[in-house]
Amino acid sequence: MSFTTLAEFRAILNDMPVADEEARAGAEARNGQLTKPPGSLGRLEDLAIWYAGWRGDAKPVLQAPQIIIFAGNHGICAQGVSAFPPEVTAQMVMNFQAGGAAINQLAKAFGAKMDVHALALETPTADFTKDAAMSEAEVVAALMTGWNAVDASADLLVTGEMGIGNTTSASAIVAALFGGAAAEWTGRGTGVDDAGLAIKIRVVADGLARHADVLDDPLQVLRCLGGRELAAMAGAIARARHLRIPVILDGFICSAAASVLEMAVTGTLDHAVAGHISAETAHGMVLKNLGKEPLLALDMRLGEGSGGALAIGILQGAIACHTGMSTFSEAGVAAG
Amino acid sequence: MSFTTLAEFRAILNDMPVADEEARAGAEARNGQLTKPPGSLGRLEDLAIWYAGWRGDAKPVLQAPQIIIFAGNHGICAQGVSAFPPEVTAQMVMNFQAGGAAINQLAKAFGAKMDVHALALETPTADFTKDAAMSEAEVVAALMTGWNAVDASADLLVTGEMGIGNTTSASAIVAALFGGAAAEWTGRGTGVDDAGLAIKIRVVADGLARHADVLDDPLQVLRCLGGRELAAMAGAIARARHLRIPVILDGFICSAAASVLEMAVTGTLDHAVAGHISAETAHGMVLKNLGKEPLLALDMRLGEGSGGALAIGILQGAIACHTGMSTFSEAGVAAG
Repeated sequence: MSFTTLAEFRAILNDMPVADEEARAGAEARNGQLTKPPGSLGRLEDLAIWYAGWRGDAKPVLQAPQIIIFAGNHGICAQGVSAFPPEVTAQMVMNFQAGGAAINQLAKAFGAKMDVHALALETPTADFTKDAAMSEAEVVAALMTGWNAVDASADLLVTGEMGIGNTTSASAIVAALFGGAAAEWTGRGTGVDDAGLAIKIRVVADGLARHADVLDDPLQVLRCLGGRELAAMAGAIARARHLRIPVILDGFICSAAASVLEMAVTGTLDHAVAGHISAETAHGMVLKNLGKEPLLALDMRLGEGSGGALAIGILQGAIACHTGMSTFSEAGVAAG
Repeated sequence: MSFTTLAEFRAILNDMPVADEEARAGAEARNGQLTKPPGSLGRLEDLAIWYAGWRGDAKPVLQAPQIIIFAGNHGICAQGVSAFPPEVTAQMVMNFQAGGAAINQLAKAFGAKMDVHALALETPTADFTKDAAMSEAEVVAALMTGWNAVDASADLLVTGEMGIGNTTSASAIVAALFGGAAAEWTGRGTGVDDAGLAIKIRVVADGLARHADVLDDPLQVLRCLGGRELAAMAGAIARARHLRIPVILDGFICSAAASVLEMAVTGTLDHAVAGHISAETAHGMVLKNLGKEPLLALDMRLGEGSGGALAIGILQGAIACHTGMSTFSEAGVAAG
């Protein structure tokens, strides 16, 4: 399957497979028989049942998680929206490839396959205060990069990103999708000072004003205010849904990219859980809009998929309990 | 090292090793050089630095976690404080030994060695509303079981428990240690109904009244209101401190046992973090009294060390990042 226009991508979003109700119900029944007081594994129980439904297996395994990092550069960097120079995007891509970044260590710790896709780093998106960040051809190409990056044999997906300036793009996207003032959705990213924050807020507000006439269409929001790595994450998350591969969302930027899908077609993110709530101010508001309760709250704000990757361990624990535990009758334990 | 009286155990608590300040400072310096914006790994950074101090290594590894489950039976069960019959304690010990419980799956998922110690299950502690739960010889024997159960080559310890009736014992202990009414510290445990909860509160209040004259001594609180598995957990956590093995505390019952140590000698739990906050009502109050911020909040209330075991993954992620990441200069990344 493929798409060459945003209209075709939208048609795919409107025709997604759903979870397997029989497997979900089978997992729920099994959960009630396991050697523990009912409900005592808390959210781990819900996670295992949800995962079983998407995998179509009442006793699922989780053995092939995939982490994909997408990198892109942003025209708005020229306005001074980041504490880091744009060269850092490419330098960090080299760090990912050499195995030296945080996400490499987390991928190894949780047994995940990790792939890195740098999207036209030498050609930043246009400054969205002046023009649309991407043409339709560019945003479709980025969506397709994400779509094609998902390994069909993976049983869990985490998408991460690297892109100096991309918290500003993410803030503009969620402000456009969910409404409200630029300042409400804009935070310090990797750590700008007060002056940097004021610039970010002004850039977001200018972007919203510049593209006001198309912001009722979430896919146009992505094209006009997004970045290539955000579009690629959206494409990968959509492909995972198409393959019924569950997704753990990372932090603010990943959640902003995912929000485009959910606002385009309600329910598109039913195969996704929120891995964590980041320290970036507006992330909690995004998750509230998506109706997602984060699994972790550890004040992380690195990106790279790091919060989502850390949550792989939670899901591994949940699935291990669900599938590996004995039932009361198997173990000869009184059910109370 | 060994002890044969509570006075000797108290003397050991008063003479514990501290963290290695040089290793801690070295880890803090290293953390500032890693390829990420300062502070962007949030609590993972604090965890890694704390762990480095206790292990005496600025670039520590975490490769030999140990989980120990202690099981005991409780005389107060005769009063109807649990939704499960006391036979379930021994049945669950068999389930642990056969590999069928939740904690077995979590141990396997996070690569932990798991040991199970059943403490005189055929001889429940005395009903603490009528007599001291244990004699001095009994509580010392239980403490020693825990003390000796710790593997000196472990680099992380999680203690868990199984004991029908032991949330009532834990409630009595924390009520005695921290003060306040029995009802404030008593919850539904594995799931008693309103009538069962009323019994638990009455039993806790009766226990506090019965032993009022010795409750200013935390070790006497453990002896009079505790259970063998709670004493063994306290012994194991103390031994870990003696060996400078960091500890992840599990839920309400484990935290109650640990609180005995902290209230006996302030600072004894400096080598411990709170793995999670459980759904048991009073656990948050216990953690607040200990000054510990939980790593996870997933509505778990199973015991067995399950919440602590799940948090092993968080610590593994934190140490992997700290020790495995490249520095800015190693990776050739601009530091911003």
